[in-house]
Amino acid sequence: MWTAHPLKESMEKKKVVIIGGGFAGINVARRLTNPHLDVLLLDKKNHHLFQPLLYQVASATLSPADIAFPLREILKNHKNASVLMGEVTRIDKNAKKVYLPHSELSYDYLVVATGARHSYFGNDKWEQHAPGLKTLVDALSIREHILLSFEKAERLDDPQEIEKHLTFVIIGGGPTGVEMAGAIAEIAHSTLLKNFRKIEPSKAQILLVEAAPRILPPYPPSLSARAQKDLESMGVKVLINTKVVDITEEGVKTDQSFLSSKNIIWAAGNQASALLKTLDTPLDRQGRAVVEPDLSLPNHPEIFVIGDAACCMNKKGIPLPAVATAAIQQGAYLGKLLNKQVPKEKRKPFKYFDKGSLATIGRAKAVGFFNGFTFSGFFAWIIWAFIHIVYLVGFRNRYAVLLEWYFHYISGARGARLIHRSIDQ
Amino acid sequence: MWTAHPLKESMEKKKVVIIGGGFAGINVARRLTNPHLDVLLLDKKNHHLFQPLLYQVASATLSPADIAFPLREILKNHKNASVLMGEVTRIDKNAKKVYLPHSELSYDYLVVATGARHSYFGNDKWEQHAPGLKTLVDALSIREHILLSFEKAERLDDPQEIEKHLTFVIIGGGPTGVEMAGAIAEIAHSTLLKNFRKIEPSKAQILLVEAAPRILPPYPPSLSARAQKDLESMGVKVLINTKVVDITEEGVKTDQSFLSSKNIIWAAGNQASALLKTLDTPLDRQGRAVVEPDLSLPNHPEIFVIGDAACCMNKKGIPLPAVATAAIQQGAYLGKLLNKQVPKEKRKPFKYFDKGSLATIGRAKAVGFFNGFTFSGFFAWIIWAFIHIVYLVGFRNRYAVLLEWYFHYISGARGARLIHRSIDQ
Repeated sequence: MWTAHPLKESMEKKKVVIIGGGFAGINVARRLTNPHLDVLLLDKKNHHLFQPLLYQVASATLSPADIAFPLREILKNHKNASVLMGEVTRIDKNAKKVYLPHSELSYDYLVVATGARHSYFGNDKWEQHAPGLKTLVDALSIREHILLSFEKAERLDDPQEIEKHLTFVIIGGGPTGVEMAGAIAEIAHSTLLKNFRKIEPSKAQILLVEAAPRILPPYPPSLSARAQKDLESMGVKVLINTKVVDITEEGVKTDQSFLSSKNIIWAAGNQASALLKTLDTPLDRQGRAVVEPDLSLPNHPEIFVIGDAACCMNKKGIPLPAVATAAIQQGAYLGKLLNKQVPKEKRKPFKYFDKGSLATIGRAKAVGFFNGFTFSGFFAWIIWAFIHIVYLVGFRNRYAVLLEWYFHYISGARGARLIHRSIDQ
Repeated sequence: MWTAHPLKESMEKKKVVIIGGGFAGINVARRLTNPHLDVLLLDKKNHHLFQPLLYQVASATLSPADIAFPLREILKNHKNASVLMGEVTRIDKNAKKVYLPHSELSYDYLVVATGARHSYFGNDKWEQHAPGLKTLVDALSIREHILLSFEKAERLDDPQEIEKHLTFVIIGGGPTGVEMAGAIAEIAHSTLLKNFRKIEPSKAQILLVEAAPRILPPYPPSLSARAQKDLESMGVKVLINTKVVDITEEGVKTDQSFLSSKNIIWAAGNQASALLKTLDTPLDRQGRAVVEPDLSLPNHPEIFVIGDAACCMNKKGIPLPAVATAAIQQGAYLGKLLNKQVPKEKRKPFKYFDKGSLATIGRAKAVGFFNGFTFSGFFAWIIWAFIHIVYLVGFRNRYAVLLEWYFHYISGARGARLIHRSIDQ
């Protein structure tokens, strides 16, 4: 492994500032046990969020607390590490400082792990009609919107208006889109059964719109076909080769037709955090910082960008996917490197180990592939469930999620069908 | 029991409108199985809320979904009953109609079970600085405020400012005030242990302010003393005989001193729902409708007011307390009465069975009394926990709450330490 730094230099206390408490950030922070490092983890939120299960909050199965864990708890026993809540607005590479609204902090090493938001490809006004799913607040707002639509439909008389409230359009056939479409189909066809007297939730239309010729484009074609078949058996209409042209309050205009709907969810496109623009370093089309093989910035061996904020090439020169496993591996790599303060010239390049991909479609339905093997159905779903429980932070969260899944699995019920907003707002 | 109504009259379909899905409302609705009744349950929210555990959401132990249950699920198998989400703005006794923002509904029988909000005794501007605890939105906002205060204190330098953020003032020494004070003491002294580097959460000051000469005034004096002792052992300062004179952004002015604090919680005073004013019927000082022995309004045998919205006298002419057991019993009584459509002259008066009172102070600490017996400590806490689990609606909720309590009991941790808001807002 790497040789440790000469004793003298490592005796000086070095400040490591980590921006972002996602998978990448916490996996660096946890490994920085060297007492000569002074570690500061900054985040806008007070918690780490387990994003792969966020769609289950949006679809009323899990509660926010089930998939979130306080950052302070994660680093509670690391005496050299502290956590500060706040938003970094600017980074000055030359002064070696990061700026918050009311203060500034200097660093010796900087780790930028600020993730990504969804992107509307330049049509930012679509966001108000087609919210995306990245934070707990997003998820709660989508959950409330879906549940309120059924409530509003029950109060309406005009059949056209009712239909508009019972039509759900999900844009983007990646994992998030597939998972949301499956979950909404289950809500309509199973969870809400016998709950209404006037409307029939089972007649709700769920449309999944994808511009490419198949859903789950990075998956093997056989799995895309399987996922589409599974979704269709659950009542989802899959519209492939369909490009979104415009989104309004009344629905989605595609290059094929107009989809009249009061429920539009955006699950397409990623854009890295805007903070990266203040770094004055080359960014790719998605706004991610292009990093060197050791995840540092060109000419700045003391600044690292990891996770969804980084454009990190694999051996074939293709950027790594924006997935949790890549972020976790980068965090672990960087944690070891910084813990030993390996100088630039001695750093071995980061190597990504592809652990495959998995996406759920619904109860007991999933697709996945690893190392050339594909799997689907109940078996894939069990693997999916197991992996997600293992990676969740916190004992309590694991038990709480397992309990919710158990109740959901046996009855189709959803434990978090809460509307906080007034229906007449 | 009551004799059923003559067949002919009961064959006509009668419309029963119930406003409010709290303890009182759902206990009426559940019993109306007579197919000749057309039952409609109206509520501003889509869920029934188990208010006795609301303080545990405000203190980050439970999630909103743990103590809420969809109203539609409760009445799912009652084919003669439907649920509608919406806020009733006015009742017209003579036209026998209730009005919602965009519609009106007529009734043959009306049940008003709209509960109460907290009251500021005419000082409504205090609310912005000292929020009360009645709804899930209230609880989430208080939770966020408490957690954000510790985060802000950690970022501050001025010792006075830090102290202000770490001082918590709870106004009102009734069960809610006692429970909140105990819970905040536990957060500061146990939950947040080792979580901060600059501030010491255990030095937080928790002040419980009560105007009367003892806390828990309706309890036997020995229990008030025990509760105060328990609170003090947990680090709560109990200020009795202390009247609140003014509340500002900077703290609470009492007739004794000024309590400088950024965290003020209002747990004093109740005011029945403003909707009752549109009934044009005698109200008591707390705005509750004065009801007859059969819970109907004077001269209106078809309108009933129950739960916290009603001023219902016991045999001694003292109004019943605003507690869940009274609401549940009134709901059950009225459910039976309406199910058989008993005419006014044959209605037996409602009889309240006093099941005693219980209040928790903290982990393994509670006080209670029943039928002249008093109990406290671990034994009282076990009874408290058992009763609260039994009365919770829904299997899932019972298991979820038990699981949270288990984790909280063994480790002092709190599962729902979530801040959604930005710290710099």
